[in-house]
Amino acid sequence: MRILGIESSAGPASCAVWEDGRILACSSANTGLTHSQTLVPMIHDMLKNAGISLKTVDLLAVAAGPGSFTGVRIGVAAVKGLAFTEDKPCVGVSTLAAMARMAAGTLFSGIICPAMDARRDQVYTALFEISEGEVIRLTDDNAVSLNNLAKQLDKYKKPVLLIGDGAELCYNTFKQILSEVFIAPLHLRYQSAVGVTLEAAVMQEQAVSSEKLMPIYLRMPQAERELKRKLSNGK
Amino acid sequence: MRILGIESSAGPASCAVWEDGRILACSSANTGLTHSQTLVPMIHDMLKNAGISLKTVDLLAVAAGPGSFTGVRIGVAAVKGLAFTEDKPCVGVSTLAAMARMAAGTLFSGIICPAMDARRDQVYTALFEISEGEVIRLTDDNAVSLNNLAKQLDKYKKPVLLIGDGAELCYNTFKQILSEVFIAPLHLRYQSAVGVTLEAAVMQEQAVSSEKLMPIYLRMPQAERELKRKLSNGK
Repeated sequence: MRILGIESSAGPASCAVWEDGRILACSSANTGLTHSQTLVPMIHDMLKNAGISLKTVDLLAVAAGPGSFTGVRIGVAAVKGLAFTEDKPCVGVSTLAAMARMAAGTLFSGIICPAMDARRDQVYTALFEISEGEVIRLTDDNAVSLNNLAKQLDKYKKPVLLIGDGAELCYNTFKQILSEVFIAPLHLRYQSAVGVTLEAAVMQEQAVSSEKLMPIYLRMPQAERELKRKLSNGK
Repeated sequence: MRILGIESSAGPASCAVWEDGRILACSSANTGLTHSQTLVPMIHDMLKNAGISLKTVDLLAVAAGPGSFTGVRIGVAAVKGLAFTEDKPCVGVSTLAAMARMAAGTLFSGIICPAMDARRDQVYTALFEISEGEVIRLTDDNAVSLNNLAKQLDKYKKPVLLIGDGAELCYNTFKQILSEVFIAPLHLRYQSAVGVTLEAAVMQEQAVSSEKLMPIYLRMPQAERELKRKLSNGK
């Protein structure tokens, strides 16, 4: 089983190929270039340099949200394009679950709290428990205020590991409130397509055709919010 | 400070760019292609896709050994080539120290035992202690038999984390002998250029010119061993 995964939900862009637990190839860039510039050439070059033909990939996976609206749309569109030409099944995974999956199999036991900066003093987050390498989802993906998240975490009375581009924001608030809170080191902190392939590997049965693959939005996109406001003002 | 790191000491080939703790770009391939085919195009494509010019890199780093003689020579030669054209300083890091460095900042506390299969029932290894995110070297890089390594580890009476392509070999032997021995998950187990850049970041003062960069061999290369035997037989 070979899975090609794509991550473009926030600043970094990455792609990876997973085969039966091993990562055959991986590429990432985190230099502020737009994903529309970076992503497809990066996938092309990764496959070329690893000698992997797209024809040998069994499943295409993407971090389908939450995340930057534009980033998620670019990732989903890239997967749709690749899947369409080769008629491959696709799976959209939760960006947050993919982040938590990276910690599975490490020696951390406790609560994984992936956090993405959702602006307006909120983070996109979901809580997962890691116990003996297994990942158990505790809460749904959601946009939560830092205060509410701290209260939620406090109830578990377990060590908390923060990951993601919102981890530092959370850490600065939580270290005064929670007794055991840790932050992933910079070189392992950010969203990665490796996590996307790991999550996709356990979601194979939920694969769909490329037409059915959709982004997962937790909030309405800004353009739609503005349209709604405009329409209601016009009433 | 920007560091370009290269890892080709065993099966996987990888390259990464580090800047002040963050990984700006990274690429890896682990599909059995020869490093002479893979490595330089991979570096070129990583820099291109991340929009990084080689001119902006301050230091070039390579896993200089121990490892496969050919792999290490290809990595060192690639760095020499890149450094020569741009007149950049270079640093050769211990492959094993680079592997240990990946665990720094994670929540593991105990002994890190990176292990590379050195054939003849031996592994290339060195022991490191990770305490509060700091990496402390306990033993020199060496080729050690599995039995001797188990005895060494047993003395520390601390949890042991095995990483590297020799980790599984060690784990199968050690799990009956040691009380707390763990193996890194497959997606974080192998040598990576990210670790090379992390180790290089703390070795900046030992940088040399490209002419002075040399591989680190713990054993004599096979061709030299055979020449020596031939010459002594001819006596």
